[in-house]
Amino acid sequence: MSSRIDALRGSLQEPLLVTNPTNLLYLVRFKSSNAALLVEEDRVRLFSDFRYAEAAREVEGVEFVETRRALLEDLAGRLSGRLGFESAYMSYAGYETLREGGLELVPRPGLVEALRAVKDERELHAHRRACAITDRVYERLAEEAFVGRTERDVAWTIAELFHDEGAEGAAFETIVASGPNAAEAHARATDRKIGRGETVVVDAGCTIDGYCSDYTRTFATGTVSDELKEAYGVCLEAQEAALKGIRPGLSGVDADAIARDIVDTTRFKGLFGHGLGHGVGLHEHEAPRLSPESAEVLEPGNVVTVEPGIYLSRVGGIRIEDDVAVTDGGMENLTNLRKDLVEVG
Amino acid sequence: MSSRIDALRGSLQEPLLVTNPTNLLYLVRFKSSNAALLVEEDRVRLFSDFRYAEAAREVEGVEFVETRRALLEDLAGRLSGRLGFESAYMSYAGYETLREGGLELVPRPGLVEALRAVKDERELHAHRRACAITDRVYERLAEEAFVGRTERDVAWTIAELFHDEGAEGAAFETIVASGPNAAEAHARATDRKIGRGETVVVDAGCTIDGYCSDYTRTFATGTVSDELKEAYGVCLEAQEAALKGIRPGLSGVDADAIARDIVDTTRFKGLFGHGLGHGVGLHEHEAPRLSPESAEVLEPGNVVTVEPGIYLSRVGGIRIEDDVAVTDGGMENLTNLRKDLVEVG
Repeated sequence: MSSRIDALRGSLQEPLLVTNPTNLLYLVRFKSSNAALLVEEDRVRLFSDFRYAEAAREVEGVEFVETRRALLEDLAGRLSGRLGFESAYMSYAGYETLREGGLELVPRPGLVEALRAVKDERELHAHRRACAITDRVYERLAEEAFVGRTERDVAWTIAELFHDEGAEGAAFETIVASGPNAAEAHARATDRKIGRGETVVVDAGCTIDGYCSDYTRTFATGTVSDELKEAYGVCLEAQEAALKGIRPGLSGVDADAIARDIVDTTRFKGLFGHGLGHGVGLHEHEAPRLSPESAEVLEPGNVVTVEPGIYLSRVGGIRIEDDVAVTDGGMENLTNLRKDLVEVG
Repeated sequence: MSSRIDALRGSLQEPLLVTNPTNLLYLVRFKSSNAALLVEEDRVRLFSDFRYAEAAREVEGVEFVETRRALLEDLAGRLSGRLGFESAYMSYAGYETLREGGLELVPRPGLVEALRAVKDERELHAHRRACAITDRVYERLAEEAFVGRTERDVAWTIAELFHDEGAEGAAFETIVASGPNAAEAHARATDRKIGRGETVVVDAGCTIDGYCSDYTRTFATGTVSDELKEAYGVCLEAQEAALKGIRPGLSGVDADAIARDIVDTTRFKGLFGHGLGHGVGLHEHEAPRLSPESAEVLEPGNVVTVEPGIYLSRVGGIRIEDDVAVTDGGMENLTNLRKDLVEVG
């Protein structure tokens, strides 16, 4: 772990107060909803309250300091001088608490997130295992009956399959979106009964050693309309083109444009309403982003989703999502699943 | 829902920009990780990006405005004038984005949280249903074998029981902490195999209509040490005294003191290291808090946990937690489970 602290130190202009829980997990493998890590040139202090004290004392390479439950108030009285802080995570109220304690605060967003975006071999190994489990879950899911069951019931089956295949847990709340619900890019599983002749968008993932997989496949319950079939074909073409294009040096904007340009030359122009993808790691959404709003450039070690979608309001939707690792020469697709529109019962 | 907006308007000195997702869920029953609600005297606008647009258009009583994915940047260009904001939730970077857009921002933390702390009859009904399911899950769990299984495996059984009893989902990540792990107040389920003669702290809950239950029971795998038995007795006495004391007008500090004073007159003084409890509702931790640091006073309609614990470092731990609703005359215990130390196999 200390190499991560060392790497972080290389980007610091002053001590950094790390408060984003995923960043703490990354830097010192400590999981808590109420903790902070102060990284200085020559020492690292971990602050947390009684509830986490027993675990915090086991963390190697840090000095543990037990605080009151009101952690930032406690730190405001304890620390002094000039500190960087994670401004994209810390609340404005938390900032005010520290500032009123006399600290000189410098917003330093994204420093640990930039390290997290580049995975080492051990992290890639965890990603590959999470993806191998997710492959098997989607293969087994395709054998299940969908029609007549609720979306929520299918989501539970997915939870059972992940457990059975050895996943630690779900990476996020599973989406099962059928019929018109599939037109919502960020639907949740509802009590809607899945009918015949519909597309069903399934977006699910698991964790291994904390690292997430994040897949989407779109199933068809029997024959779907020509419009949905055509949308599937366009979405798949866009995804395959984007996958072929992924390589170091490609910007998030340009990666997104590969897929978007394909969709936008068809009758489905404008219906791919979200970005192409995002980094995955200890959090299911992290750097780098692949979207028209991205400011990032791909580099080896990034693990990203590639997930174009086409959404037909009140009718249905399509999304196809793989997880890929950016390599020196291009990319390694961590997802090994068929890509055609799979019919389910 | 509009009565909630009306109640909120009563506490506003300027328009309020609501960005805490649980507060949005409470006010307009809209669930999103990227949305904001602007509540003004005469209009309510809901802002979110494409992914949530299909669902946002269905929300009653609001004008929906689709934004870019960079929601706050988008709002910075779109809004003007003086706005209250949820400073305990909004990040410092988000605040800066809005401020640079020329908005005059007033921190207004906790306004919606104060409304959420007082449940109406419909909300209490959801809590009662979640608790009834949780009662049955703990009763069935007591029939299960624990010894030789991993904590994680028992946690999965709990997930299955909740599903089987009709819960929507887990309210939070289930804690199963056995042996020395039970000395961590905020342990997680690990791959540790549960042994004989240990206490096992199980902290779990489910949701119904989004409302959470949050229970803890401590099981014994066969006969445990006299020290742990004694700790159980003290913890139970502290919990029962606190339950008897719960009534409107009691401060969070005084509620906590009822239990703490009992623990602190025994050999376990100082080992009840966390607060007595917290509100539960659409979020598993909300107002009011019952702790030495609380600034709140109980009122009818609050739903709170009552959960003293005793933690013996490297040895084991005890926690007993019920969910109770504060009533006009005292409290209604929503938890209907035995309180003695239940032996499991």
